[in-house]
Amino acid sequence: MLNVKTPDEALEIIRTSFVPLDRPPENVTLSSALGRVLALDVTADAYVPDFHRSTVDGYAVRAADTFGCSDALPAQLILSGEVRMGEGAGLTLAPGQCAAVPTGGEVPQGADAVQMLELCEDYGDGTIGILKSVAPGHNMIFRGDDVKPGDRVLPAGRRLEPQDIGALAALGMTSVPVVPRLRVGVISTGDELVPPEQIPAIGQVRDVNGPLVCALLEQAGVLPRFYGIVPDQEDCLTRTMEQGLTECDAVILSGGSSVGEKDAAYRVMSALGKILFHGIAMKPGKPTLLGRTGSGKAMVGLPGHPVAALFCTHLFVRAILARLEGRSLRQRQVTARLVEEVSANHGRSQYNGAILRQGSQGLEALPIRGKSGLITALAGADGYFCIPRDCEGFPAGTQVLVNIFIAD
Amino acid sequence: MLNVKTPDEALEIIRTSFVPLDRPPENVTLSSALGRVLALDVTADAYVPDFHRSTVDGYAVRAADTFGCSDALPAQLILSGEVRMGEGAGLTLAPGQCAAVPTGGEVPQGADAVQMLELCEDYGDGTIGILKSVAPGHNMIFRGDDVKPGDRVLPAGRRLEPQDIGALAALGMTSVPVVPRLRVGVISTGDELVPPEQIPAIGQVRDVNGPLVCALLEQAGVLPRFYGIVPDQEDCLTRTMEQGLTECDAVILSGGSSVGEKDAAYRVMSALGKILFHGIAMKPGKPTLLGRTGSGKAMVGLPGHPVAALFCTHLFVRAILARLEGRSLRQRQVTARLVEEVSANHGRSQYNGAILRQGSQGLEALPIRGKSGLITALAGADGYFCIPRDCEGFPAGTQVLVNIFIAD
Repeated sequence: MLNVKTPDEALEIIRTSFVPLDRPPENVTLSSALGRVLALDVTADAYVPDFHRSTVDGYAVRAADTFGCSDALPAQLILSGEVRMGEGAGLTLAPGQCAAVPTGGEVPQGADAVQMLELCEDYGDGTIGILKSVAPGHNMIFRGDDVKPGDRVLPAGRRLEPQDIGALAALGMTSVPVVPRLRVGVISTGDELVPPEQIPAIGQVRDVNGPLVCALLEQAGVLPRFYGIVPDQEDCLTRTMEQGLTECDAVILSGGSSVGEKDAAYRVMSALGKILFHGIAMKPGKPTLLGRTGSGKAMVGLPGHPVAALFCTHLFVRAILARLEGRSLRQRQVTARLVEEVSANHGRSQYNGAILRQGSQGLEALPIRGKSGLITALAGADGYFCIPRDCEGFPAGTQVLVNIFIAD
Repeated sequence: MLNVKTPDEALEIIRTSFVPLDRPPENVTLSSALGRVLALDVTADAYVPDFHRSTVDGYAVRAADTFGCSDALPAQLILSGEVRMGEGAGLTLAPGQCAAVPTGGEVPQGADAVQMLELCEDYGDGTIGILKSVAPGHNMIFRGDDVKPGDRVLPAGRRLEPQDIGALAALGMTSVPVVPRLRVGVISTGDELVPPEQIPAIGQVRDVNGPLVCALLEQAGVLPRFYGIVPDQEDCLTRTMEQGLTECDAVILSGGSSVGEKDAAYRVMSALGKILFHGIAMKPGKPTLLGRTGSGKAMVGLPGHPVAALFCTHLFVRAILARLEGRSLRQRQVTARLVEEVSANHGRSQYNGAILRQGSQGLEALPIRGKSGLITALAGADGYFCIPRDCEGFPAGTQVLVNIFIAD
């Protein structure tokens, strides 16, 4: 008997059954850190910037000296010097004085605002006319406006994006502590499978799930290791699973998980650890199997049908990997208007691929038709949406929540 | 004078000014193809699957033999054999016959449907009872249902995603013709800049744009090459730009592009090619500069402010790279409800970072406050939205279109 869970129950089991693997952080250079998962909180230990900066080319002033000035009645200030890029200002403004300052240059002591060049006039006699008043703080960034010592800039568990790399550079963090990449074994099983490079005979099909699951894992930022196509027999599967669990942090077996005379995957995983669930009330994807070893590694049995394997990897395997990495998973979801009716009546959550396009009234989702084994139907898909188990389908015009296929 | 364009005009200039670089495709293995850009259309040259397959464990039948049957009055059929996984069926059904067939197995000639095991009864005397009628085609996939010879499965110019890798595996395409990766040079300029590993003195700041732009390029699937921090002087910039244009397909220079006594970038690029525009009516990002060399390479001058550099790279540099690769760019946009008011009144399109979160009534966008130079404010951002130039801002509750920061 399948111990069938709903997709939400399956995610909750994943959340409570797996914990971050206990591994020391690895230090990588800033230029290798993109996409890696931060192992520790990043906290600033200095002010950024470490001095008051101008955001325009202009004149640093004491704001009070400009109050009430205008085109007709400029404030006339004594030019006390010029600040150069990359150097300290080296001067202090007294009342009635100003200093030329470039964009990004230091605003001298005594000054509390900058007026832009276009609103000033150089009289050529050592004085500058300010044509419009400025409020204190205008056109400048104060010391520590970006970060102050002790500010937490990035939290542990975050996957580093380009703007985070920029923030780390600003902090001078050129060696970044990251979570070691997970290694994940992939096994394909099924007596009908031949490697993609082989021409299938009648009754045979090419192994799609091996390359597909490895690509999904690569996109998820982990290191896939493919163990090849293994005969759907308990002893062969056990040997390969054991090797995979020794060498990797998780092993994904696709095929061999349906309930029939060939449910070797269930028996193999039962012997190697604890089964957490067998079967999810979803279509496609019902015969999904999850187990955990004594050391906290994950064993996943994916359906043999490629589209089912794709949805289940996106929904569940990514959630498992995030738990093992100590990372919070961000689902990227968009709301879109379904442009065609989709029916459902299985008593199971139905997942349907979709192409997103910008319509005249916002984002539209075009459902992809096709049977669950047909992977080429999903080439070009942007994501998928779910029709709940208690629903007989969605009419055209329904606003659906589309999970988009991207790395996270 | 700046020849200022709107963001849409800038994108149109990019579209019409750059063409795909003329380079022969490169063949990569299937396991190295994720994220690469397909150089040629992929067309099927065989049927997938190449035989009629069952989608369930059950009995292959002639549908007509089951019409009118029921629990109470099963259709009794003669079991003519058993199909094995990975082998041809090797038999032909005559009227009144059926054959056992596993999920994925070949449906024998003569059969046109499959009834699932649970709706059949094995009488143990060489006959099988079918308890529910099936329509022709039920529970099976026909030869070529996935693809037929001549079907275009993937178009040239597509960036390969995991499901595409699966489709290529199904077609047996283990060597994939892809567009060679673009090489893009990155130069930082500014006398105030020091490398991230150095502690800045007063007046100095760390170079954020070098690491930031390289990370954005890496995420966009091209090969960045950093030429370091170059003094903001025409001769130094010219030498480095020339080297970059010799070694790369495009060069991005950040800093040095504002109009002042230091607009060396403009003069350098003018001498090396044709300026396409200088200045975009947007905030931040106004002093963006674009040029093209005689051989069709791109020269980009980005603003020195990191947030401006980030938005301009996301908006314009990615569009240029897509043109040079012959790829159509997909903007990932989501509609979200702005949760706080944002004001604008610059006569320029204003771009604002945003954090996306799932609210009780759909997706919400939390605007990020902060001045344009503050990169750490964008650590954690999911994307950005634009307030048009003719608009004084958006009240809380406005539905905004958020461009999300992801590779494409």
